[in-house]
Amino acid sequence: MSGLLDRIQKANDIKDIEPEYYYDLAYEIRRFLLKKISKTGGHVASNLGVVELTMALHLCLDFPKDKLIWDVGHQAYTHKILTGRKDGFDALRHYKGLSGFPKMEESDCDAFNTGHSSTSISAALGYAKARDILGEDYKVFAVIGDGALSGGMVFEALNNAANLKSNMVIVLNDNNMSISENVGGMANYLGQIRTGEGYTDLKVGVENALKKVPVIGDSVVQKVRSSKDLIKRIMIPGMFFEDMGLTYIGPIDGHDINKLIKAFNTASKAKEPVIVHVVTKKGKGYKYAEENPMKFHGIDSFVAGTGECMPKNRQPSYTEVFSNKLVELGKKDSSIVAITAAMQNGTGLSKFNKEYPGRMFDVGIAEEHAVTFAAGLAAGGAKPIVAVYSTFLQRAYDQILHDVCLCRLPVVFMVDRAGIVGPDGATHQGIYDISYMRTIPELTIMAPKNYIELGDMLEYALKLNAPVAIRYPKGTAYRGLEDKNEPLEYGKAEVLYENKQYDKKSVLIVALGSMVKVAEEVIEKLKEDNINYSFVNLRFAAPIDMDTIENMSKKHDIIVTMEENTFIGGIGEYIISKLDIAGINIKKIPVALDTEFVEHGEREFLLKMCGLDSETVYNRIVESWRKL
Amino acid sequence: MSGLLDRIQKANDIKDIEPEYYYDLAYEIRRFLLKKISKTGGHVASNLGVVELTMALHLCLDFPKDKLIWDVGHQAYTHKILTGRKDGFDALRHYKGLSGFPKMEESDCDAFNTGHSSTSISAALGYAKARDILGEDYKVFAVIGDGALSGGMVFEALNNAANLKSNMVIVLNDNNMSISENVGGMANYLGQIRTGEGYTDLKVGVENALKKVPVIGDSVVQKVRSSKDLIKRIMIPGMFFEDMGLTYIGPIDGHDINKLIKAFNTASKAKEPVIVHVVTKKGKGYKYAEENPMKFHGIDSFVAGTGECMPKNRQPSYTEVFSNKLVELGKKDSSIVAITAAMQNGTGLSKFNKEYPGRMFDVGIAEEHAVTFAAGLAAGGAKPIVAVYSTFLQRAYDQILHDVCLCRLPVVFMVDRAGIVGPDGATHQGIYDISYMRTIPELTIMAPKNYIELGDMLEYALKLNAPVAIRYPKGTAYRGLEDKNEPLEYGKAEVLYENKQYDKKSVLIVALGSMVKVAEEVIEKLKEDNINYSFVNLRFAAPIDMDTIENMSKKHDIIVTMEENTFIGGIGEYIISKLDIAGINIKKIPVALDTEFVEHGEREFLLKMCGLDSETVYNRIVESWRKL
Repeated sequence: MSGLLDRIQKANDIKDIEPEYYYDLAYEIRRFLLKKISKTGGHVASNLGVVELTMALHLCLDFPKDKLIWDVGHQAYTHKILTGRKDGFDALRHYKGLSGFPKMEESDCDAFNTGHSSTSISAALGYAKARDILGEDYKVFAVIGDGALSGGMVFEALNNAANLKSNMVIVLNDNNMSISENVGGMANYLGQIRTGEGYTDLKVGVENALKKVPVIGDSVVQKVRSSKDLIKRIMIPGMFFEDMGLTYIGPIDGHDINKLIKAFNTASKAKEPVIVHVVTKKGKGYKYAEENPMKFHGIDSFVAGTGECMPKNRQPSYTEVFSNKLVELGKKDSSIVAITAAMQNGTGLSKFNKEYPGRMFDVGIAEEHAVTFAAGLAAGGAKPIVAVYSTFLQRAYDQILHDVCLCRLPVVFMVDRAGIVGPDGATHQGIYDISYMRTIPELTIMAPKNYIELGDMLEYALKLNAPVAIRYPKGTAYRGLEDKNEPLEYGKAEVLYENKQYDKKSVLIVALGSMVKVAEEVIEKLKEDNINYSFVNLRFAAPIDMDTIENMSKKHDIIVTMEENTFIGGIGEYIISKLDIAGINIKKIPVALDTEFVEHGEREFLLKMCGLDSETVYNRIVESWRKL
Repeated sequence: MSGLLDRIQKANDIKDIEPEYYYDLAYEIRRFLLKKISKTGGHVASNLGVVELTMALHLCLDFPKDKLIWDVGHQAYTHKILTGRKDGFDALRHYKGLSGFPKMEESDCDAFNTGHSSTSISAALGYAKARDILGEDYKVFAVIGDGALSGGMVFEALNNAANLKSNMVIVLNDNNMSISENVGGMANYLGQIRTGEGYTDLKVGVENALKKVPVIGDSVVQKVRSSKDLIKRIMIPGMFFEDMGLTYIGPIDGHDINKLIKAFNTASKAKEPVIVHVVTKKGKGYKYAEENPMKFHGIDSFVAGTGECMPKNRQPSYTEVFSNKLVELGKKDSSIVAITAAMQNGTGLSKFNKEYPGRMFDVGIAEEHAVTFAAGLAAGGAKPIVAVYSTFLQRAYDQILHDVCLCRLPVVFMVDRAGIVGPDGATHQGIYDISYMRTIPELTIMAPKNYIELGDMLEYALKLNAPVAIRYPKGTAYRGLEDKNEPLEYGKAEVLYENKQYDKKSVLIVALGSMVKVAEEVIEKLKEDNINYSFVNLRFAAPIDMDTIENMSKKHDIIVTMEENTFIGGIGEYIISKLDIAGINIKKIPVALDTEFVEHGEREFLLKMCGLDSETVYNRIVESWRKL
């Protein structure tokens, strides 16, 4: 049977599909996903893994009345197909195109916006209580991967859910993976359930266990205890969740639609929160993704027939530069250790882990713990490097302040994907880190102009013996300005070029990190117009080198501050206010992002849209120049 | 035996006390604590509860070599006594006096600074791994209350600890309380262990359980499952922790020193992390605190002999004003619900809870979940109010941004204890909230000038149908300016007084929230000097009313911005930079805190020390005025 997908035009249409064709539809969905994602890029493995799971949910739920919340949300592609958004996949993750994540603005079948991990149970519990209080009647389902289960919020939510006794269904989509292999006690526990240790040997096991237990006598406790593991694992999967006061159903084959439907229907009839433990295979149905789910987690375009990525002849990214430098530094100093929150590959720590086993810690999706764990490591004399994306470090704001900086502990934060990230969209833009980090006392913040400076800054940070953050963007590390290598000095900017024609009008450009490259392009244009300029690489976003800036401002007519961060709380706001307070009269042009969410699209396109491109900056300067 | 306390002059001195006198020493410590805290104020119940526990730890550990980390840390008074800091108790929580929390700067026996909840296991795990990697040899202990166990970080840390297999000992100090009653699935679970349900009935229980289990046959699973709770609870305390891969010892009587010592010694010999579950009584040995541990959690001075607090003839606090207003609004609108993270009393929600049972949610010490849960409630159509202290809301920075504001969900944050809080010190000052909240798009931030405006703002916020935060300080609600009640208008400041003598020099004062009162005092002094002024109550910290400020700035010579928050990221920085960019020439005086940690001391004293008092502000204005 083919052409089934054509019959899915809007939400709930799947209910008209004859049950005997369910697996044909699943096949069509997988083919559709591969065809589309191989062109646009996107999340492959996780979406292929939940096709039957999503279908079963849609067969049980009534959209948009019932509420379905996808944790993280990158696995919601089939959900989008089944709610009439099939045609959007040609522009998946492109500007104004279909988002790669659930979005309430995109469809009333998306009950909650997600992107960051481990939020779904909290949100679902909120829906469930609102429903009860307002006297409404609908089902609430959350789908959460086993990887997201390591986030502390999940535990907070489960703890609360057990207490509130409202029906909601938590579908634990267990594929034994975060982006990389799962880690931690919880993952081991699920592994025991999943592999059904004991199930096959059930009868024998129970028999043996019980044989060991004398029915009477004081020694009964001792004897029973010695067999407790056996008894427990044989009889009671999910006891961990039951201990917390939640009802557990599972494990269930996540590719068996009928079994899933049965479980979901049972679960939604309960009076309390129920966990349905579903076992799925990441990348299911596409052998290249099944074999290498990590590669096919989030991916750019690829050849569907071979699983090969499109060749790219590109220079190393900042992540790779960091990765290599860390390996180099780690060789000389064995007290250097590295921490990641389930992003070993993305943050560039795999190499270090391979070179120095036991010195890299993947703590799971657990940024709060990652930071305070690093604080403990530093207090104990090690030299911890926390490698993390800007957007995820938001989770650990309090820990940076309270556990690292208040104790002035030497933790180095390598803040990757700082600035516009692009296709992942509003939930993932790293455009707030300078602002939120600058509010924290004792924290030094740097941003490198190019690949050499990134390495230098890391080396410098490790020597500082104080909390330091280094932020750098996604993508290719800038290779310009290789000859400019003024040694790093604490809190000092680097003057790349100083205008000496003091008698003429001139522009002072102060750029931070990724904006130094853009500033260079601006300067090329200014040169053509014979506009005099000076050019400063700020280097430190905290503390800001006001001495240099004040001194130079006195000799210029316009100052342009450039940062890939929001204006509010950024370097421009501070520099402008401080120059003003100091009574220095100079025209200011702050180049920064507005305090508003930036949607998905290509990074370069979004930068231009937000006015962080050389043309816009040049035009603003010229406009000011003319008015001087 | 008396005079034992005199023999404790420094760390490890307790080891010279003869074991038969341990309980006499405990008695002396309790008397000492009551005598001192009744004068200075401080944390009573939690400290009385851990006297024997702390003594046992000090008998097992070698300070400062071994590392002991107190979660939250307000229960470390006995630890301070036993490490030679007895004499400091006369100035407990006073400026430059003994801190109410562990501080590495105060003693090398304090291994980590704490204050916020649920950090100790992460930090301890860091110490343990640093020790192993650096080849050192010491013990690492964390002491964590059962209340702190609801914080998600704990789960993240336990999950990680299970994986890392380094020895560390987690002492679970289970007194069945946070500040108020504990809530959630975990608390229920601990309750079952603690009360030993089944222990007393052990023989009968096991017998019955086993009788129900047929030894052979396929129905064995079904039958065994039906009796699983019984079997489990009888046989396996702490299985929850063992499921996570941790070794569990307990429950142990936390007032039996010899049993504690034995357990701690056993635990520290393991090769992996061990949880020692200790049951204590909050307020132990002081009947008034045993009977009312909530009252004696954190307390001002009291009469030790009667347990009576010193009478205070004071006006209602902002918290009380909020509390009453919420009850009033809750009557009219049954969709209003309230959320607290284990601070029902402190945040003023008890009254609402009593009036409208089922509409207040205490989620435990779990700020992240609290915020996303509120987002879910709002998405489901309820009107959630999250009442939380400024310092604790830091924990939920990402959730405010990602789950509330990105979805533009109408959650109202009542940010209490904003500004300087005083005796609790650097970990608890609420001086960053304007800065970190202003970085978040879509978030409206308000601060009331007096008690009337707080009520008005709450009412207004509930009508906005958007994310709103209202911040207000600790202590008495200001009762001045009662006649100034311009209706709230979105993003608009309130002009309290406008200078009309345009031809003369004049000062424009723009004050936010708590600073309006200080500004009034400043104005009284300016009047005496015949200095012309205008006076603006900013009301909105986001968005800031630049229209009004720009228009008025054009007619004044000096603008003074006043906020009880750090300058960086605050309202002053923004206003100054925006006025400058707009080309408005006016002298600026920003009154705000420096970006540095503020130690413990009385609130009024610290405000003065930080330059937020009327005298300092007045002097700065006069100095500028003279230079005009």
